[in-house]
Amino acid sequence: MKKALIALAVLGLTGGAAVAQSSVTLFGVIDADMKYVKTGDVKLKKLDSSGLNTSRIGVRGTEDLGGGLKAGFWLESEVFADTGAADSTRFWGRRATVSLSGDFGEVRLGRNKTVSRLHLEDFDPFTFTGLGSVGAIYSNLGSGNGTAYGRADNLVSYSLPGGLSGFYGGVDISAGEGTGTNKGQSVRVGYKNGPLHVSGAYASTSNAADNDKFKLTSIGAAYDFGVARPSLSYSENKFMARKQQILTASVTVPLGQGQFVAAYTDAKANTAAETAATGYTPIGDAKLLALGYVYNLSKRTALYTTYSQIDNKGAAKFLVAGAPAATAGGLKSSGFDVGVKHSF
Amino acid sequence: MKKALIALAVLGLTGGAAVAQSSVTLFGVIDADMKYVKTGDVKLKKLDSSGLNTSRIGVRGTEDLGGGLKAGFWLESEVFADTGAADSTRFWGRRATVSLSGDFGEVRLGRNKTVSRLHLEDFDPFTFTGLGSVGAIYSNLGSGNGTAYGRADNLVSYSLPGGLSGFYGGVDISAGEGTGTNKGQSVRVGYKNGPLHVSGAYASTSNAADNDKFKLTSIGAAYDFGVARPSLSYSENKFMARKQQILTASVTVPLGQGQFVAAYTDAKANTAAETAATGYTPIGDAKLLALGYVYNLSKRTALYTTYSQIDNKGAAKFLVAGAPAATAGGLKSSGFDVGVKHSF
Amino acid sequence: MKKALIALAVLGLTGGAAVAQSSVTLFGVIDADMKYVKTGDVKLKKLDSSGLNTSRIGVRGTEDLGGGLKAGFWLESEVFADTGAADSTRFWGRRATVSLSGDFGEVRLGRNKTVSRLHLEDFDPFTFTGLGSVGAIYSNLGSGNGTAYGRADNLVSYSLPGGLSGFYGGVDISAGEGTGTNKGQSVRVGYKNGPLHVSGAYASTSNAADNDKFKLTSIGAAYDFGVARPSLSYSENKFMARKQQILTASVTVPLGQGQFVAAYTDAKANTAAETAATGYTPIGDAKLLALGYVYNLSKRTALYTTYSQIDNKGAAKFLVAGAPAATAGGLKSSGFDVGVKHSF
Repeated sequence: MKKALIALAVLGLTGGAAVAQSSVTLFGVIDADMKYVKTGDVKLKKLDSSGLNTSRIGVRGTEDLGGGLKAGFWLESEVFADTGAADSTRFWGRRATVSLSGDFGEVRLGRNKTVSRLHLEDFDPFTFTGLGSVGAIYSNLGSGNGTAYGRADNLVSYSLPGGLSGFYGGVDISAGEGTGTNKGQSVRVGYKNGPLHVSGAYASTSNAADNDKFKLTSIGAAYDFGVARPSLSYSENKFMARKQQILTASVTVPLGQGQFVAAYTDAKANTAAETAATGYTPIGDAKLLALGYVYNLSKRTALYTTYSQIDNKGAAKFLVAGAPAATAGGLKSSGFDVGVKHSF
Repeated sequence: MKKALIALAVLGLTGGAAVAQSSVTLFGVIDADMKYVKTGDVKLKKLDSSGLNTSRIGVRGTEDLGGGLKAGFWLESEVFADTGAADSTRFWGRRATVSLSGDFGEVRLGRNKTVSRLHLEDFDPFTFTGLGSVGAIYSNLGSGNGTAYGRADNLVSYSLPGGLSGFYGGVDISAGEGTGTNKGQSVRVGYKNGPLHVSGAYASTSNAADNDKFKLTSIGAAYDFGVARPSLSYSENKFMARKQQILTASVTVPLGQGQFVAAYTDAKANTAAETAATGYTPIGDAKLLALGYVYNLSKRTALYTTYSQIDNKGAAKFLVAGAPAATAGGLKSSGFDVGVKHSF
Repeated sequence: MKKALIALAVLGLTGGAAVAQSSVTLFGVIDADMKYVKTGDVKLKKLDSSGLNTSRIGVRGTEDLGGGLKAGFWLESEVFADTGAADSTRFWGRRATVSLSGDFGEVRLGRNKTVSRLHLEDFDPFTFTGLGSVGAIYSNLGSGNGTAYGRADNLVSYSLPGGLSGFYGGVDISAGEGTGTNKGQSVRVGYKNGPLHVSGAYASTSNAADNDKFKLTSIGAAYDFGVARPSLSYSENKFMARKQQILTASVTVPLGQGQFVAAYTDAKANTAAETAATGYTPIGDAKLLALGYVYNLSKRTALYTTYSQIDNKGAAKFLVAGAPAATAGGLKSSGFDVGVKHSF
């Protein structure tokens, strides 16, 4: 039953079997790592948050409305375990949704990950978190909006119901609300059955100032052989004439009371993306190597260690999580950590 | 038992029947609506929060101290379901109180709604929330302080005990703490017995800069005929020579698995209120029409739809909730929404 | 079982006796006081928060990992009960930690009180809170960093295990993370057995700008005679040539359904500490007298009253909690409050 460790019985309803489906759950993760990071010649030792999973606290629940219909809500807030800070702009910035689901699928309203982001996480063995996150080398190419590979406000999303023989899918739109840059939409379709998982996503977000859209197209495939789960992912980010192509090959290997993970990513920028323009800081090619081992003390608690490095080329200034800012393009950024993750 | 859906048993006390009265409750509402709003010619589609009830999360509890004495606390935080934001100034801005109650009544300390605001909500069928909120056309008349019809910091409040044959009442004062504008007091008395409810409130808040007080006087009456509950409310806001008079007639009609609500409000400003002065943007007359239907999927979950419009006159720039800013006085502001509310 | 009033059973584990040790607890304190404070001739009446204990809300938990090993987490956020505000910089600023404990002791990562601060609280009968807090006259002597007697980010701490015949101890370090002022370390050793409690602590925090460290050395002793618990504490704060010596004598006396507390503190500044320098506002000698009575309505709820006054000398501008700012050095600051504290 995953992270739903605290299922509080819901009182005050009229009783009966259906009521047993209703619950409210307080959940969270506290994850802290001791970290050594380096960019070029600048080194730093630090205690950081969210080395394996993002530290968070949340409350979520579902209510069985009968006839297969369910209502649900989800509030989730990031915790910066090193300083005790929360997201000061959007306290519930990880998720704030209300939803209705049934035979027709699920409709959700609120702030949430786009379905495009959900696709990307499935094919990054570091799930866009910590030193190994492939998110470190994703660029919005000067569009000013990375919701295509992140989260969006004002989201209305629809997901297909289960029971489609492994096929699944979802679509979402976020209202622009008069400011062009908030407007976006994304769509995802996939197939997950037994050991095989394939999925594709497309997302676009408006940029009124430049009268163009940031577009992300991505496909991924993974196969679980039992002794290892290799995975391949390809993404293309476009904005105006700029383009970034990101190819990730990774493998997850069960090892002892845990798992070993390795991922290699090759990101290429086209000439337009490498060229400075008004309001645009150029990027460049980059390669990301990430190795990690997770040792599970229990289902809820794990020790882990990670090593990662980004080889930047040209103007590229990509950084592993928590690394010092790059003083110039083309510098190597690397990190090593040891941490503990506890979920509740 | 209303919203107290999760009553956690309190452990660690010495046991016995009295202890069974003690509880801590995690509660909340997530409410989001898809909205079409218009002010003058400017139109906007958006996903918004709090169309029917204000989205929130809170923790509250009571402890039975024996002999009829109870201690209690209440923390409540607004949730902006569209962006995941919380109130960045006062996280627990909806309420943060500790209280003692017994045969003598109840004393509360902390931030809270004034008793004057509580009176006003009782006679607005939209309870000061969403597109239909009568709060949209309340003006503080340049006093810079709307706590008389809102919430106040540093509040000490006293409520009469129950069991007074339907009579109830309360009074509160908020300390100025050296800044004149925070200082306020309000008083309310009412009678609610069977189908009849009548109530009156008076509140004043200091404004040191102008050496005068903002004063709100309000009376309301409602009668529940079963097939319909008509309600009448009259408020007078005053500051210096400025005056605003607000008359609301409304009706709530049970309809199918829900209820239909209609409210019409006529707000009049006197000549002083319509006249610009240093630091004061003049208002004008306005009429608010609001229609809503709530369809209950369960006690906790509802679908709803609302239509409202404000007809501004002269310099008036009142807006329905979430509407674009008025570019001039006298423009019509209107909105239509469809939303879902889920409480826990 | 102290404040762990709500222990939620943890579901989803494999059952058994060990599991019974795992729990997640929602806890808090709401404490508000009506206060009269005065500095020099400036008087103020106010409603304030945290007169006896700091108002807070938190979630904490432990998981039994078997073999004596436990994982734990702790999130704690201050609540300003007078305004409903939370800490806007660090929402979980009181504590955000993840920990592992066992026969070896306990290792904690995150934001927390330093062990030095924990020592100081043990010998201040007002535990650094409210009108009587001895913290009011602690100075960082211009070092810009009071974590030695407060809390620190990026903390890695280790505590000795129990079962050492009353001896206990701990050490912590906080990473500088490239900014010298965050770097610190502290150590504490103590002995608590039967009525006797003695403890000592040393802490230092870096200040890169002045190329020196702020250093705090403190010792304390208390003996519980049953009818009274007298306590003595001595602290020395040093930074560059500046020094502040703080001697506190206090007594806690059980009285009726509560306890009476009196504390007298004499703080002396040396000549360097009394001399203005670039970026340094000089302090001076000060004496703090604090008297308090707590009346327990239950284990969770108390009424209390406090009187305190600080006699500032020379340039000293120390203030009792919530008092108006001093317009000059050497003014007396005093306060009186009556409040209610409720914990859950």
